[in-house]
Amino acid sequence: MFRHSSKLQYPVKVDKPDPQFAMLLQQAIGGVEGEIRVAMQYFFQAMGARGDDRIRDLLMSTATEELSHIEMLGHAVALNLEGAPLSYQEESAKDPVINAILGGMNPRHLLSSGLSAMPVNANGVPFDMSHVYATGNIGADMMCNVAAEAGGRVLASRLYNWTDDKGMKDFLSFLIARDTYHQQQWLAIIEELGGMEEQLPIPNSTPDDHEAKEHSYYYLNTLLDKQAPEGRWSQGPSLDGRSEYSMKQEPEPLGQEPSLGKAREGARAQKEQM
Amino acid sequence: MFRHSSKLQYPVKVDKPDPQFAMLLQQAIGGVEGEIRVAMQYFFQAMGARGDDRIRDLLMSTATEELSHIEMLGHAVALNLEGAPLSYQEESAKDPVINAILGGMNPRHLLSSGLSAMPVNANGVPFDMSHVYATGNIGADMMCNVAAEAGGRVLASRLYNWTDDKGMKDFLSFLIARDTYHQQQWLAIIEELGGMEEQLPIPNSTPDDHEAKEHSYYYLNTLLDKQAPEGRWSQGPSLDGRSEYSMKQEPEPLGQEPSLGKAREGARAQKEQM
Amino acid sequence: MFRHSSKLQYPVKVDKPDPQFAMLLQQAIGGVEGEIRVAMQYFFQAMGARGDDRIRDLLMSTATEELSHIEMLGHAVALNLEGAPLSYQEESAKDPVINAILGGMNPRHLLSSGLSAMPVNANGVPFDMSHVYATGNIGADMMCNVAAEAGGRVLASRLYNWTDDKGMKDFLSFLIARDTYHQQQWLAIIEELGGMEEQLPIPNSTPDDHEAKEHSYYYLNTLLDKQAPEGRWSQGPSLDGRSEYSMKQEPEPLGQEPSLGKAREGARAQKEQM
Amino acid sequence: MFRHSSKLQYPVKVDKPDPQFAMLLQQAIGGVEGEIRVAMQYFFQAMGARGDDRIRDLLMSTATEELSHIEMLGHAVALNLEGAPLSYQEESAKDPVINAILGGMNPRHLLSSGLSAMPVNANGVPFDMSHVYATGNIGADMMCNVAAEAGGRVLASRLYNWTDDKGMKDFLSFLIARDTYHQQQWLAIIEELGGMEEQLPIPNSTPDDHEAKEHSYYYLNTLLDKQAPEGRWSQGPSLDGRSEYSMKQEPEPLGQEPSLGKAREGARAQKEQM
Amino acid sequence: MFRHSSKLQYPVKVDKPDPQFAMLLQQAIGGVEGEIRVAMQYFFQAMGARGDDRIRDLLMSTATEELSHIEMLGHAVALNLEGAPLSYQEESAKDPVINAILGGMNPRHLLSSGLSAMPVNANGVPFDMSHVYATGNIGADMMCNVAAEAGGRVLASRLYNWTDDKGMKDFLSFLIARDTYHQQQWLAIIEELGGMEEQLPIPNSTPDDHEAKEHSYYYLNTLLDKQAPEGRWSQGPSLDGRSEYSMKQEPEPLGQEPSLGKAREGARAQKEQM
Amino acid sequence: MFRHSSKLQYPVKVDKPDPQFAMLLQQAIGGVEGEIRVAMQYFFQAMGARGDDRIRDLLMSTATEELSHIEMLGHAVALNLEGAPLSYQEESAKDPVINAILGGMNPRHLLSSGLSAMPVNANGVPFDMSHVYATGNIGADMMCNVAAEAGGRVLASRLYNWTDDKGMKDFLSFLIARDTYHQQQWLAIIEELGGMEEQLPIPNSTPDDHEAKEHSYYYLNTLLDKQAPEGRWSQGPSLDGRSEYSMKQEPEPLGQEPSLGKAREGARAQKEQM
Repeated sequence: MFRHSSKLQYPVKVDKPDPQFAMLLQQAIGGVEGEIRVAMQYFFQAMGARGDDRIRDLLMSTATEELSHIEMLGHAVALNLEGAPLSYQEESAKDPVINAILGGMNPRHLLSSGLSAMPVNANGVPFDMSHVYATGNIGADMMCNVAAEAGGRVLASRLYNWTDDKGMKDFLSFLIARDTYHQQQWLAIIEELGGMEEQLPIPNSTPDDHEAKEHSYYYLNTLLDKQAPEGRWSQGPSLDGRSEYSMKQEPEPLGQEPSLGKAREGARAQKEQM
Repeated sequence: MFRHSSKLQYPVKVDKPDPQFAMLLQQAIGGVEGEIRVAMQYFFQAMGARGDDRIRDLLMSTATEELSHIEMLGHAVALNLEGAPLSYQEESAKDPVINAILGGMNPRHLLSSGLSAMPVNANGVPFDMSHVYATGNIGADMMCNVAAEAGGRVLASRLYNWTDDKGMKDFLSFLIARDTYHQQQWLAIIEELGGMEEQLPIPNSTPDDHEAKEHSYYYLNTLLDKQAPEGRWSQGPSLDGRSEYSMKQEPEPLGQEPSLGKAREGARAQKEQM
Repeated sequence: MFRHSSKLQYPVKVDKPDPQFAMLLQQAIGGVEGEIRVAMQYFFQAMGARGDDRIRDLLMSTATEELSHIEMLGHAVALNLEGAPLSYQEESAKDPVINAILGGMNPRHLLSSGLSAMPVNANGVPFDMSHVYATGNIGADMMCNVAAEAGGRVLASRLYNWTDDKGMKDFLSFLIARDTYHQQQWLAIIEELGGMEEQLPIPNSTPDDHEAKEHSYYYLNTLLDKQAPEGRWSQGPSLDGRSEYSMKQEPEPLGQEPSLGKAREGARAQKEQM
Repeated sequence: MFRHSSKLQYPVKVDKPDPQFAMLLQQAIGGVEGEIRVAMQYFFQAMGARGDDRIRDLLMSTATEELSHIEMLGHAVALNLEGAPLSYQEESAKDPVINAILGGMNPRHLLSSGLSAMPVNANGVPFDMSHVYATGNIGADMMCNVAAEAGGRVLASRLYNWTDDKGMKDFLSFLIARDTYHQQQWLAIIEELGGMEEQLPIPNSTPDDHEAKEHSYYYLNTLLDKQAPEGRWSQGPSLDGRSEYSMKQEPEPLGQEPSLGKAREGARAQKEQM
Repeated sequence: MFRHSSKLQYPVKVDKPDPQFAMLLQQAIGGVEGEIRVAMQYFFQAMGARGDDRIRDLLMSTATEELSHIEMLGHAVALNLEGAPLSYQEESAKDPVINAILGGMNPRHLLSSGLSAMPVNANGVPFDMSHVYATGNIGADMMCNVAAEAGGRVLASRLYNWTDDKGMKDFLSFLIARDTYHQQQWLAIIEELGGMEEQLPIPNSTPDDHEAKEHSYYYLNTLLDKQAPEGRWSQGPSLDGRSEYSMKQEPEPLGQEPSLGKAREGARAQKEQM
Repeated sequence: MFRHSSKLQYPVKVDKPDPQFAMLLQQAIGGVEGEIRVAMQYFFQAMGARGDDRIRDLLMSTATEELSHIEMLGHAVALNLEGAPLSYQEESAKDPVINAILGGMNPRHLLSSGLSAMPVNANGVPFDMSHVYATGNIGADMMCNVAAEAGGRVLASRLYNWTDDKGMKDFLSFLIARDTYHQQQWLAIIEELGGMEEQLPIPNSTPDDHEAKEHSYYYLNTLLDKQAPEGRWSQGPSLDGRSEYSMKQEPEPLGQEPSLGKAREGARAQKEQM
């Protein structure tokens, strides 16, 4: 069961409201790198977590923190929209600079939300919950969580570059810090479970005879006219400790030509296909 | 520039066509764990790759392989639909077992695609390209690629469990093998770049003074009435080698109450909000 | 069966075409507050209406009117796009003001629609029919219709603020008027059915013993550190005339800790989860 | 800032797990009538609330309760999936009844989520955040919230009909009760603000001269060959207390024929259009 | 301006209600081959039509007819849902055949719409308006309309196969007939405009010097290991009467290797990319 | 099986990078008129092709070419983003012209993709695979392919107008040329199959007695107050050679009034509907 405290997790101040920055901040709310995604991803992973209850608790605890990040970002968007013009034409007629600023806003902050945050990204595209990745396999899910936090920190760092507002920079430096930790938090679970060598390949519970292992350790070079790239992936012991990497430089197709023959009577193809 | 060979990468045989399994295979084509997603993800990452050209080549080469996986799966779906009834009512009137089988099909395989694969998942939901994650940051992208391949191998392993068709099992064991390799291929790039300690936190190019590092290494326990979960994430040296982990057991909000005051004249709130 | 008259429901004139306003008007066509939504919502409610045929007729009649509103808005968008530059670069090189205006347009009005309306909102996001709410319960549907018309009138009022074109203001004042009526039209049906006390709770046909009525009349305060807000919702007779409101100031969870135990063999979790 | 208690708001028990009912319950999680929608809708309304802080607190407090409803439903789905077959073919070969049950499941509960809840509806369609309605106008938002709770109670009542599991019926009777209250909670805010007569038309802050009031109080009958439906909507004082209702039986178009003339040079229409 | 007649365009009878067929009929309402799509496509094309007003009138007139087709299909869905069980468990416990039938229904017809049509396809996926194709170029639009009507007639023919209900077969034979006509109606416009030779390539208004015509008339064979397919496309005079077709059997890339060099300082790539 | 050559199909040069043009080019990648759509459409049609294998080969060969078009466009987008400012505020503070240019960019090119192409359209809306039309009927599919290539050439022609960059104009003139060919390539298949008269109506395999042919050859005029448009569609022999066209000037509804009667007990309508 969730509860709510009336104060924000961290102070959110805006010195100079900027409606364009409000639009950019939306990416951190409703973008695929954003906080709705991680909050919901950890929440659904927690609800489906089986095995060590500590991991379920970590997931739910962090989902709860991410909800608080949405709350801060929502406030940051609203503060940046303070003072935005409510009448477009009058302002823009007067001044091309204002016009340009308005051109960079999300017009739905004026038309639809009444100067408040929306669950959309920086293009105004609504977040869709298919981005909540939760497989029930803790190895797959942790890697996905690291990826989500990495994307989140890339975004927060880029947003930091796009503002010179002191309050916003301070707030973003906090989000950057929490993303630093959360990347490592999820990797630390992999450590707890024995590290990559134990966890790979994911799922590590697939029986050996379900896998055509002769195809499990080579890099397949599909490039036609170029030396294949060599590196750690094409030589040396495999990261899962089960084999050695190699390379297939000039792969030949092993399968058949996929002809389907004629269409069946009654399938409503054209007559000429039958 | 792409080219095409007329044969499949690996043989695809179906001993006993099964329209229900055709529906399940769709998840491996058009699901978020599926092959359209990885083909397009690696393709877009390759088109935006900056830095070491070997990584761009790996991305493009693997994108090309994944396109060939779509092709095999598309053929597998069509083969499983061979012999599906084209007239629902007649068959189902005769036999509850057939009726049940039909109940488990995707009806659009009959109505919309003419007994062929579609770019949709096992629920018939079309794949949408927002699932192509490509940030321009090679660390974030590699973690996301590992996650995608982990999800893919979980799916292929579950599909393996759902069929007893010998041809399908052989085909899926090949996909499982390639997912084993691709998980490690992307992690091997992290190794080439110096390993996790060098790569974390992602992005490793964010200047130190953009981060409130006093908030970067603690687990925040938001659980109200429960001992916080302890583990590798709450103690010991950080995985990025920059600090030590700790825990905040009873976090207090650091921020303000986010009151927005009154609505502005002209914002078309209700009068009572002004 | 539908028919069509060659003239518009109300005159649509544009004195000074404005491509930016064309983009904003799109919200009234393809936004969730827009006319496609209400036209289709009333149409589907009418097709599913059971009970008093007058209500079905009202729904179909108003759906038909809303189709005519789409038609007027589509014309308004096209008129606002008259004279928009067809060659971006030449114009923008000349003049930052023109550039700014173009920056605020929907580029797909030039690239995709050939200077015409599209079924998208002000961000260019296509309308999606999941926003057609129709439950088969006339109480639920009427409340949703009032909400839709309220959102529509908020939007039309904000659009009115964003233009000083006399023709557009006249046209929007007509839409504002019709939204005034339609809000009340749907509430009038509630009146016909005996008013809120009779209609609540919706559905009023749910048998009493399907409801844990000891939980039906209290406000649950989940706020941790703050006096719960008091008002009409926490005291006095209930609006459905069945009880009295009260407040739960410090709610305790009544349920269990939701642990799922271990993962099953064969579910393709990681081994460590089993 | 959010916090989390380890126990559920209300007990969730399943006596006889039923994978088909798991699929149906998804509608209450990820459907437009579901709990993600109301949780996020109240959360975003709270973040944008201006005016009386009690209303903001009610919104945030109730958003928090709805998050706890998602949590219970997620647990209910997982419990209903306990014991679902992990191998489709073996089971279905044996028994048409089992086959039929499987035919009615969401296959992605097996393939994608590992026997856990997903943020999708009963058709497997992911929830999309465009359904979070929040206009910044408290009148419009409250009507929309009533509609959402009405839809929610209709759904919960129908789900109640579809199960004879005692645990599930008890749990659903709790959700039905809370929806009873929440419908009235939002209407009680309208009461606090002076009731419908004061609040209508929404927004009540639109200046009178922005409205063509001669079109604000008549029912427009677009039906061609039928007596117009008469009722409270076509006569008597208007609900906003400003006028009298009337009816337009045979409406004539007031506008022009919307001809656009020829296509412009350079617009890339066909030559014949120019 | 639209009007509405109280009767359907054509009789819609259902002799034996079939909830599964109701689900299938949804494809003709909310599928990409369905009636919402063509109604809205012709409506938006009409609103943007420039040039010969007869074409605008045809578009609007046919849009209006398609709205009437939605109306008939919506009624057909509701009639097929008459008698569907409202309590799933009771029925299915009794009888595997009933269970199987239920397994093939759209559960949201029971849960969400109250036994009525929804604007979704046969998988329950809502129609989205991005499928309304309208370019402002009458040649492109007519080809798209023919394609839409062809897809529609394929679908109606397949639906005809899936029912043995006499009323439904009669109704579908009417839709099949109208699709026959509409395919030709749009092609007849091409005839009016001078036929394919005049209309191709679309747009026929693109100036000659905007086209690298040396690349306009050859089939590019990208197949690696196979004789290129020969036919009308690789020889003979071109359909636009401007040239002769030929074939490029072994195409060489004409362009450069697309290397992007290093990432820029500040772009938040990994350090190793810079 | 696919392979990849390291060079582009055609040279892609950008003389003067333009971040706004990068946004516009996205329409040709991820728009419904774009290259992802045709690549995937031909790919899925090829995988489901039944009948003449030459057509399958043409489809796969052209799908492969279209993948190479995506690759060129992706490079063009990245080249246009070279030099885009990474810090929004600093630049825009200095200069309204730069500000205006930035206002016209896709901010996600900076925030999300790191100055690279994304699989989205010019509004930033992700491509969704429901736009892959593939019916299994070669007649329907070819018409759809012509429509797609017509839309593509309209778009490329409009993009040509919007740039004065010599490299971009050269590149676009190549795309325009290939679209010229591909429109005719698909029509040439219709020719091979006997031409329109043989192919119409699509599907030409629908048995005659499935069609109410008395409704197959008239234009239905639903316009109320206007002379019906006359032309090739209303007179003369039908294009399928089976009949003569005519016109229904004043159509009467042939069907019944679609009343559904009362709601059933247990359907959770309001009591007043029962």
